[in-house]
Amino acid sequence: MAHLPHLYLPGPWEQPVLEPTAQQIHHLRRVLRRTGDEPVSYTDGGGRIGTGTVIARGVQRGNEHTVARPVPSVTLAVAPPQSTERVRFLVEKLAELGVDRLVWLSTRHTQGHPPRREKCLAWAGAALEQSRGAWLMTVEGPVAVGDLEGAVWVASPGSAPPPRVSGDTTLVVGPEGGLDPDELGGEAVEIGLGGRILRVETAAIVGAALVLDRSGRNTT
Amino acid sequence: MAHLPHLYLPGPWEQPVLEPTAQQIHHLRRVLRRTGDEPVSYTDGGGRIGTGTVIARGVQRGNEHTVARPVPSVTLAVAPPQSTERVRFLVEKLAELGVDRLVWLSTRHTQGHPPRREKCLAWAGAALEQSRGAWLMTVEGPVAVGDLEGAVWVASPGSAPPPRVSGDTTLVVGPEGGLDPDELGGEAVEIGLGGRILRVETAAIVGAALVLDRSGRNTT
Repeated sequence: MAHLPHLYLPGPWEQPVLEPTAQQIHHLRRVLRRTGDEPVSYTDGGGRIGTGTVIARGVQRGNEHTVARPVPSVTLAVAPPQSTERVRFLVEKLAELGVDRLVWLSTRHTQGHPPRREKCLAWAGAALEQSRGAWLMTVEGPVAVGDLEGAVWVASPGSAPPPRVSGDTTLVVGPEGGLDPDELGGEAVEIGLGGRILRVETAAIVGAALVLDRSGRNTT
Repeated sequence: MAHLPHLYLPGPWEQPVLEPTAQQIHHLRRVLRRTGDEPVSYTDGGGRIGTGTVIARGVQRGNEHTVARPVPSVTLAVAPPQSTERVRFLVEKLAELGVDRLVWLSTRHTQGHPPRREKCLAWAGAALEQSRGAWLMTVEGPVAVGDLEGAVWVASPGSAPPPRVSGDTTLVVGPEGGLDPDELGGEAVEIGLGGRILRVETAAIVGAALVLDRSGRNTT
Protein backbone atom coordinates (compact mmCIF):
# COMPACT_ATOMS: atom_id res chain seq x y z
CA MET A 1 0.00 0.00 0.00
CA ALA A 2 2.86 2.39 0.75
CA HIS A 3 3.67 2.91 -2.93
CA LEU A 4 0.10 3.29 -4.17
CA PRO A 5 -0.36 6.84 -5.51
CA HIS A 6 -2.59 8.88 -3.18
CA LEU A 7 -4.73 11.62 -4.76
CA TYR A 8 -6.42 14.60 -3.18
CA LEU A 9 -9.79 14.85 -4.98
CA PRO A 10 -11.98 17.44 -3.21
CA GLY A 11 -15.62 16.44 -2.64
CA PRO A 12 -18.50 16.18 -2.89
CA TRP A 13 -18.04 12.88 -4.70
CA GLU A 14 -21.26 12.46 -6.67
CA GLN A 15 -20.24 10.39 -9.71
CA PRO A 16 -18.76 6.87 -9.89
CA VAL A 17 -15.71 8.28 -11.73
CA LEU A 18 -13.77 11.18 -10.16
CA GLU A 19 -11.76 13.63 -12.26
CA PRO A 20 -8.16 14.32 -11.27
CA THR A 21 -6.60 17.65 -12.30
CA ALA A 22 -4.38 17.82 -15.39
CA GLN A 23 -1.38 18.04 -13.06
CA GLN A 24 -2.39 14.89 -11.16
CA ILE A 25 -2.91 12.99 -14.44
CA HIS A 26 0.49 14.16 -15.66
CA HIS A 27 2.08 12.99 -12.41
CA LEU A 28 0.35 9.60 -12.58
CA ARG A 29 1.15 8.91 -16.21
CA ARG A 30 4.57 10.49 -16.65
CA VAL A 31 6.24 10.36 -13.28
CA LEU A 32 4.88 7.04 -12.05
CA ARG A 33 4.57 5.57 -15.59
CA ARG A 34 1.02 4.36 -14.90
CA THR A 35 -0.72 3.46 -18.14
CA GLY A 36 -4.24 2.82 -16.85
CA ASP A 37 -6.23 0.36 -14.75
CA GLU A 38 -3.80 0.86 -11.92
CA PRO A 39 -4.85 0.88 -8.25
CA VAL A 40 -4.85 4.27 -6.53
CA SER A 41 -6.02 5.68 -3.21
CA TYR A 42 -7.82 9.02 -2.89
CA THR A 43 -9.17 11.38 -0.26
CA ASP A 44 -11.47 14.40 -0.14
CA GLY A 45 -9.29 16.03 2.52
CA GLY A 46 -12.28 15.92 4.88
CA GLY A 47 -11.83 12.42 6.28
CA ARG A 48 -13.08 10.26 3.38
CA ILE A 49 -10.57 7.82 1.89
CA GLY A 50 -11.10 5.36 -0.95
CA THR A 51 -9.20 2.82 -2.99
CA GLY A 52 -10.00 2.83 -6.70
CA THR A 53 -8.61 2.35 -10.17
CA VAL A 54 -7.09 4.79 -12.65
CA ILE A 55 -9.02 4.36 -15.91
CA ALA A 56 -9.00 6.45 -19.08
CA ARG A 57 -11.71 8.86 -17.88
CA GLY A 58 -10.43 9.34 -14.34
CA VAL A 59 -10.51 7.46 -11.05
CA GLN A 60 -13.10 4.68 -10.78
CA ARG A 61 -14.27 4.73 -7.15
CA GLY A 62 -13.95 1.58 -5.04
CA ASN A 63 -14.15 0.85 -1.32
CA GLU A 64 -14.41 3.99 0.79
CA HIS A 65 -14.29 4.69 4.51
CA THR A 66 -14.15 7.64 6.90
CA VAL A 67 -11.15 8.52 9.07
CA ALA A 68 -12.16 10.44 12.22
CA ARG A 69 -10.62 13.90 12.63
CA PRO A 70 -7.63 13.46 14.97
CA VAL A 71 -7.95 14.86 18.48
CA PRO A 72 -6.78 16.99 20.12
CA SER A 73 -6.51 19.48 17.25
CA VAL A 74 -3.17 21.20 16.66
CA THR A 75 -3.01 24.74 15.26
CA LEU A 76 0.15 26.63 14.32
CA ALA A 77 -0.12 30.44 14.37
CA VAL A 78 2.91 31.78 12.51
CA ALA A 79 4.29 35.16 11.46
CA PRO A 80 5.10 34.60 7.75
CA PRO A 81 8.83 34.51 6.91
CA GLN A 82 10.12 36.97 4.31
CA SER A 83 11.28 34.53 1.65
CA THR A 84 8.71 32.80 -0.56
CA GLU A 85 10.81 29.63 -0.58
CA ARG A 86 10.72 29.45 3.22
CA VAL A 87 7.00 30.19 3.32
CA ARG A 88 6.33 27.36 0.87
CA PHE A 89 8.48 24.96 2.87
CA LEU A 90 6.68 25.92 6.07
CA VAL A 91 3.22 25.32 4.60
CA GLU A 92 4.26 22.06 2.94
CA LYS A 93 5.91 20.63 6.05
CA LEU A 94 3.10 21.55 8.46
CA ALA A 95 0.54 19.96 6.10
CA GLU A 96 2.76 16.90 5.68
CA LEU A 97 3.03 16.42 9.46
CA GLY A 98 -0.75 16.53 9.85
CA VAL A 99 -1.19 19.92 11.52
CA ASP A 100 -4.93 20.72 11.44
CA ARG A 101 -4.83 24.47 10.99
CA LEU A 102 -2.32 27.13 9.99
CA VAL A 103 -3.19 30.69 11.01
CA TRP A 104 -1.03 33.52 9.67
CA LEU A 105 -0.21 36.07 12.34
CA SER A 106 -0.20 39.79 11.91
CA THR A 107 2.31 41.20 14.41
CA ARG A 108 4.10 44.50 14.93
CA HIS A 109 7.46 43.14 13.74
CA THR A 110 6.31 40.70 11.05
CA GLN A 111 8.54 40.99 7.99
CA GLY A 112 6.84 38.78 5.39
CA HIS A 113 3.35 38.74 3.92
CA PRO A 114 1.07 35.69 3.88
CA PRO A 115 0.95 34.16 0.40
CA ARG A 116 -2.40 33.91 -1.40
CA ARG A 117 -4.71 31.38 0.26
CA GLU A 118 -5.18 29.38 -2.97
CA LYS A 119 -1.40 28.97 -3.24
CA CYS A 120 -1.17 27.74 0.37
CA LEU A 121 -3.98 25.25 -0.20
CA ALA A 122 -2.28 23.93 -3.35
CA TRP A 123 0.94 23.32 -1.38
CA ALA A 124 -1.07 21.74 1.45
CA GLY A 125 -2.95 19.50 -1.01
CA ALA A 126 0.28 18.23 -2.56
CA ALA A 127 1.65 17.53 0.93
CA LEU A 128 -1.56 15.68 1.86
CA GLU A 129 -1.03 13.40 -1.15
CA GLN A 130 2.64 12.92 -0.35
CA SER A 131 1.97 12.05 3.28
CA ARG A 132 -1.12 9.89 2.51
CA GLY A 133 -3.39 11.83 4.88
CA ALA A 134 -7.20 12.10 5.02
CA TRP A 135 -7.54 15.62 6.47
CA LEU A 136 -6.35 18.70 4.58
CA MET A 137 -4.74 21.44 6.68
CA THR A 138 -6.84 24.61 6.65
CA VAL A 139 -5.20 28.01 6.20
CA GLU A 140 -6.58 31.19 7.79
CA GLY A 141 -5.65 34.74 8.78
CA PRO A 142 -3.93 37.03 9.12
CA VAL A 143 -5.08 37.61 12.71
CA ALA A 144 -3.52 39.31 15.72
CA VAL A 145 -2.08 37.12 18.50
CA GLY A 146 -4.62 38.51 20.96
CA ASP A 147 -7.48 37.21 18.79
CA LEU A 148 -6.41 33.55 19.03
CA GLU A 149 -8.82 31.39 21.01
CA GLY A 150 -8.35 28.43 23.35
CA ALA A 151 -5.09 27.15 24.86
CA VAL A 152 -2.20 29.19 23.44
CA TRP A 153 1.49 28.28 23.72
CA VAL A 154 4.27 30.57 22.51
CA ALA A 155 7.63 29.37 21.24
CA SER A 156 10.20 31.21 23.32
CA PRO A 157 13.99 30.57 23.28
CA GLY A 158 15.31 29.42 26.66
CA SER A 159 11.97 28.15 27.97
CA ALA A 160 11.30 24.57 29.10
CA PRO A 161 10.27 21.95 26.51
CA PRO A 162 6.50 21.61 25.95
CA PRO A 163 4.49 19.65 28.52
CA ARG A 164 1.82 17.06 27.68
CA VAL A 165 -1.02 18.37 25.55
CA SER A 166 -4.39 18.12 27.33
CA GLY A 167 -6.73 19.47 24.62
CA ASP A 168 -6.90 21.51 21.43
CA THR A 169 -3.73 23.60 21.34
CA THR A 170 -2.43 26.57 19.36
CA LEU A 171 1.32 27.16 19.15
CA VAL A 172 2.40 30.72 18.31
CA VAL A 173 5.67 31.24 16.42
CA GLY A 174 6.41 34.94 16.33
CA PRO A 175 8.53 36.89 13.84
CA GLU A 176 12.35 37.03 14.06
CA GLY A 177 12.05 40.51 15.55
CA GLY A 178 10.00 38.98 18.41
CA LEU A 179 6.59 39.75 19.85
CA ASP A 180 6.15 42.82 22.03
CA PRO A 181 4.99 41.88 25.56
CA ASP A 182 1.64 43.63 25.12
CA GLU A 183 0.94 41.76 21.87
CA LEU A 184 1.00 38.44 23.63
CA GLY A 185 -1.63 38.79 26.35
CA GLY A 186 -1.26 37.17 29.73
CA GLU A 187 -2.59 33.69 29.09
CA ALA A 188 0.11 32.22 26.85
CA VAL A 189 2.41 29.47 28.13
CA GLU A 190 6.02 29.89 26.93
CA ILE A 191 7.69 26.73 25.63
CA GLY A 192 11.23 26.04 24.39
CA LEU A 193 12.20 24.25 21.19
CA GLY A 194 15.84 23.41 21.98
CA GLY A 195 19.07 25.19 22.69
CA ARG A 196 19.42 27.13 19.42
CA ILE A 197 17.82 30.28 18.02
CA LEU A 198 15.63 29.01 15.17
CA ARG A 199 14.35 30.63 11.99
CA VAL A 200 10.58 31.09 11.86
CA GLU A 201 9.96 28.14 9.53
CA THR A 202 12.24 25.84 11.55
CA ALA A 203 10.57 26.79 14.83
CA ALA A 204 7.15 26.15 13.27
CA ILE A 205 8.09 22.70 11.93
CA VAL A 206 9.90 21.59 15.09
CA GLY A 207 7.18 23.11 17.29
CA ALA A 208 4.50 21.24 15.33
CA ALA A 209 6.44 17.99 15.68
CA LEU A 210 6.80 18.43 19.46
CA VAL A 211 3.16 19.44 20.03
CA LEU A 212 1.96 16.47 17.93
CA ASP A 213 4.35 14.27 19.92
CA ARG A 214 2.97 15.55 23.23
CA SER A 215 -0.61 15.10 22.00
CA GLY A 216 -0.37 11.32 21.81
CA ARG A 217 -1.59 11.46 18.19
CA ASN A 218 1.78 10.06 17.06
CA THR A 219 1.04 6.68 18.52
CA THR A 220 -1.60 5.87 15.89
CA MET B 1 22.33 39.80 22.83
CA ALA B 2 19.75 38.10 20.60
CA HIS B 3 20.22 40.61 17.79
CA LEU B 4 24.03 40.74 17.87
CA PRO B 5 25.36 39.34 14.57
CA HIS B 6 27.02 35.96 15.14
CA LEU B 7 29.92 35.03 12.84
CA TYR B 8 31.45 31.64 12.09
CA LEU B 9 35.20 32.33 11.87
CA PRO B 10 37.08 29.00 11.69
CA GLY B 11 40.18 28.69 13.89
CA PRO B 12 42.92 28.64 14.84
CA TRP B 13 42.61 32.22 16.06
CA GLU B 14 46.16 33.50 16.19
CA GLN B 15 45.85 37.24 15.60
CA PRO B 16 44.02 39.90 17.64
CA VAL B 17 41.94 40.79 14.56
CA LEU B 18 40.02 37.99 12.73
CA GLU B 19 39.14 38.23 9.04
CA PRO B 20 35.54 37.58 8.01
CA THR B 21 34.88 36.40 4.46
CA ALA B 22 33.78 38.88 1.81
CA GLN B 23 30.26 37.46 2.10
CA GLN B 24 30.17 37.96 5.87
CA ILE B 25 31.41 41.55 5.48
CA HIS B 26 28.77 42.18 2.84
CA HIS B 27 26.09 40.79 5.16
CA LEU B 28 27.29 42.88 8.10
CA ARG B 29 27.56 46.15 6.18
CA ARG B 30 24.70 45.95 3.72
CA VAL B 31 22.08 43.75 5.31
CA LEU B 32 22.49 44.83 8.90
CA ARG B 33 23.68 48.35 7.99
CA ARG B 34 26.62 48.12 10.39
CA THR B 35 29.11 50.84 9.68
CA GLY B 36 31.95 49.86 11.99
CA ASP B 37 32.84 49.62 15.68
CA GLU B 38 29.73 47.52 16.25
CA PRO B 39 29.58 44.64 18.75
CA VAL B 40 29.53 41.14 17.27
CA SER B 41 29.81 37.58 18.56
CA TYR B 42 31.86 34.91 16.83
CA THR B 43 32.65 31.20 17.07
CA ASP B 44 35.21 28.80 15.62
CA GLY B 45 32.55 26.08 15.32
CA GLY B 46 34.62 23.97 17.73
CA GLY B 47 33.26 25.28 21.02
CA ARG B 48 35.01 28.68 21.28
CA ILE B 49 32.78 31.74 21.42
CA GLY B 50 33.81 35.38 21.71
CA THR B 51 32.30 38.83 21.79
CA GLY B 52 34.21 41.45 19.81
CA THR B 53 33.92 44.55 17.67
CA VAL B 54 33.62 45.02 13.92
CA ILE B 55 36.40 47.41 12.89
CA ALA B 56 37.65 48.40 9.45
CA ARG B 57 40.17 45.53 9.21
CA GLY B 58 37.90 42.77 10.56
CA VAL B 59 36.72 41.57 13.96
CA GLN B 60 38.65 42.82 16.98
CA ARG B 61 38.63 39.94 19.47
CA GLY B 62 37.21 40.48 22.97
CA ASN B 63 36.15 38.17 25.79
CA GLU B 64 36.21 34.51 24.80
CA HIS B 65 35.03 31.32 26.46
CA THR B 66 34.56 27.64 25.65
CA VAL B 67 31.20 25.88 25.36
CA ALA B 68 31.45 22.15 26.15
CA ARG B 69 30.38 19.80 23.36
CA PRO B 70 26.79 18.80 24.14
CA VAL B 71 26.22 15.21 25.30
CA PRO B 72 24.90 12.76 24.31
CA SER B 73 25.90 13.29 20.68
CA VAL B 74 23.18 13.10 18.02
CA THR B 75 23.98 11.83 14.51
CA LEU B 76 21.57 11.74 11.57
CA ALA B 77 22.36 9.18 8.85
CA VAL B 78 20.29 10.11 5.81
CA ALA B 79 19.79 8.87 2.25
CA PRO B 80 20.10 12.09 0.20
CA PRO B 81 16.83 13.33 -1.39
CA GLN B 82 16.79 13.83 -5.16
CA SER B 83 16.17 17.57 -5.27
CA THR B 84 19.02 19.97 -4.51
CA GLU B 85 16.60 22.37 -2.85
CA ARG B 86 15.47 19.65 -0.42
CA VAL B 87 19.06 18.56 0.26
CA ARG B 88 20.04 22.13 1.10
CA PHE B 89 17.04 22.52 3.40
CA LEU B 90 17.89 19.26 5.16
CA VAL B 91 21.51 20.25 5.81
CA GLU B 92 20.58 23.77 6.90
CA LYS B 93 17.86 22.65 9.30
CA LEU B 94 19.89 19.85 10.93
CA ALA B 95 22.79 22.27 11.49
CA GLU B 96 20.40 24.91 12.82
CA LEU B 97 18.91 22.46 15.36
CA GLY B 98 22.36 21.56 16.67
CA VAL B 99 22.74 18.02 15.28
CA ASP B 100 26.39 17.03 15.80
CA ARG B 101 26.99 14.93 12.72
CA LEU B 102 25.31 14.28 9.37
CA VAL B 103 26.31 11.06 7.63
CA TRP B 104 25.10 10.51 4.05
CA LEU B 105 23.89 6.96 3.50
CA SER B 106 24.54 4.85 0.48
CA THR B 107 21.60 2.43 0.13
CA ARG B 108 20.24 0.15 -2.57
CA HIS B 109 17.24 2.42 -3.30
CA THR B 110 18.82 5.84 -2.73
CA GLN B 111 17.69 8.23 -5.44
CA GLY B 112 19.80 11.35 -4.83
CA HIS B 113 23.53 11.97 -4.61
CA PRO B 114 25.24 13.68 -1.67
CA PRO B 115 26.23 17.23 -2.57
CA ARG B 116 29.89 18.25 -2.40
CA ARG B 117 31.16 18.35 1.17
CA GLU B 118 32.33 21.99 0.86
CA LYS B 119 28.82 23.01 -0.14
CA CYS B 120 27.29 21.18 2.84
CA LEU B 121 29.75 22.80 5.21
CA ALA B 122 28.95 26.25 3.80
CA TRP B 123 25.22 25.65 4.42
CA ALA B 124 26.00 24.30 7.91
CA GLY B 125 28.22 27.32 8.66
CA ALA B 126 25.47 29.78 7.70
CA ALA B 127 23.00 27.84 9.87
CA LEU B 128 25.47 27.91 12.78
CA GLU B 129 25.57 31.71 12.52
CA GLN B 130 21.80 31.97 12.21
CA SER B 131 21.19 29.74 15.24
CA ARG B 132 24.02 31.28 17.34
CA GLY B 133 25.69 27.94 18.02
CA ALA B 134 29.25 27.12 19.07
CA TRP B 135 29.63 23.67 17.44
CA LEU B 136 29.56 23.22 13.66
CA MET B 137 27.78 20.10 12.38
CA THR B 138 30.23 17.75 10.66
CA VAL B 139 29.32 16.08 7.35
CA GLU B 140 30.57 12.63 6.38
CA GLY B 141 29.91 9.70 4.04
CA PRO B 142 28.50 8.19 2.02
CA VAL B 143 28.58 4.97 4.09
CA ALA B 144 26.40 1.85 4.13
CA VAL B 145 23.87 1.45 6.97
CA GLY B 146 25.71 -1.65 8.19
CA ASP B 147 28.88 0.40 8.74
CA LEU B 148 27.27 2.78 11.27
CA GLU B 149 28.61 2.38 14.79
CA GLY B 150 27.01 2.64 18.25
CA ALA B 151 23.31 2.85 19.08
CA VAL B 152 21.33 2.97 15.84
CA TRP B 153 17.65 3.90 15.53
CA VAL B 154 15.74 3.68 12.27
CA ALA B 155 12.79 5.90 11.34
CA SER B 156 9.99 3.52 10.42
CA PRO B 157 6.37 4.52 9.70
CA GLY B 158 3.91 2.98 12.16
CA SER B 159 6.46 2.34 14.91
CA ALA B 160 6.21 3.76 18.43
CA PRO B 161 7.61 7.25 19.16
CA PRO B 162 11.28 7.34 20.23
CA PRO B 163 12.10 6.43 23.85
CA ARG B 164 14.47 8.36 26.11
CA VAL B 165 18.01 8.66 24.76
CA SER B 166 20.58 7.03 27.02
CA GLY B 167 23.81 7.80 25.16
CA ASP B 168 25.26 8.81 21.79
CA THR B 169 22.60 7.97 19.20
CA THR B 170 22.42 7.69 15.41
CA LEU B 171 19.04 8.00 13.70
CA VAL B 172 18.81 6.44 10.23
CA VAL B 173 16.41 7.97 7.70
CA GLY B 174 16.26 5.70 4.66
CA PRO B 175 15.33 6.57 1.07
CA GLU B 176 11.68 6.90 -0.07
CA GLY B 177 12.00 3.45 -1.65
CA GLY B 178 12.82 2.02 1.80
CA LEU B 179 15.70 -0.03 3.15
CA ASP B 180 15.89 -3.72 2.30
CA PRO B 181 15.74 -5.87 5.47
CA ASP B 182 19.27 -7.19 4.92
CA GLU B 183 20.66 -3.67 4.59
CA LEU B 184 19.59 -2.76 8.09
CA GLY B 185 21.28 -5.36 10.27
CA GLY B 186 19.66 -6.79 13.37
CA GLU B 187 20.60 -4.20 15.98
CA ALA B 188 18.53 -1.22 14.91
CA VAL B 189 15.58 -0.01 16.99
CA GLU B 190 12.62 1.11 14.85
CA ILE B 191 11.00 4.39 15.90
CA GLY B 192 7.97 6.27 14.57
CA LEU B 193 7.77 9.96 13.69
CA GLY B 194 4.00 10.43 13.65
CA GLY B 195 0.98 9.21 11.75
CA ARG B 196 1.96 10.42 8.27
CA ILE B 197 4.35 9.15 5.60
CA LEU B 198 7.11 11.78 5.52
CA ARG B 199 9.52 12.89 2.82
CA VAL B 200 13.17 12.17 3.57
CA GLU B 201 14.05 15.73 4.57
CA THR B 202 10.95 16.06 6.76
CA ALA B 203 11.65 12.77 8.52
CA ALA B 204 15.25 13.86 9.13
CA ILE B 205 14.29 17.25 10.59
CA VAL B 206 11.44 15.88 12.75
CA GLY B 207 13.55 12.87 13.77
CA ALA B 208 16.40 15.17 14.82
CA ALA B 209 14.00 17.32 16.83
CA LEU B 210 12.55 14.29 18.65
CA VAL B 211 15.94 12.67 19.37
CA LEU B 212 17.29 16.00 20.67
CA ASP B 213 14.11 16.33 22.76
CA ARG B 214 14.58 12.82 24.21
CA SER B 215 18.26 13.51 24.94
CA GLY B 216 17.53 16.18 27.54
CA ARG B 217 19.81 18.59 25.65
CA ASN B 218 16.80 20.82 24.97
CA THR B 219 16.56 21.83 28.60
CA THR B 220 19.73 23.96 28.46
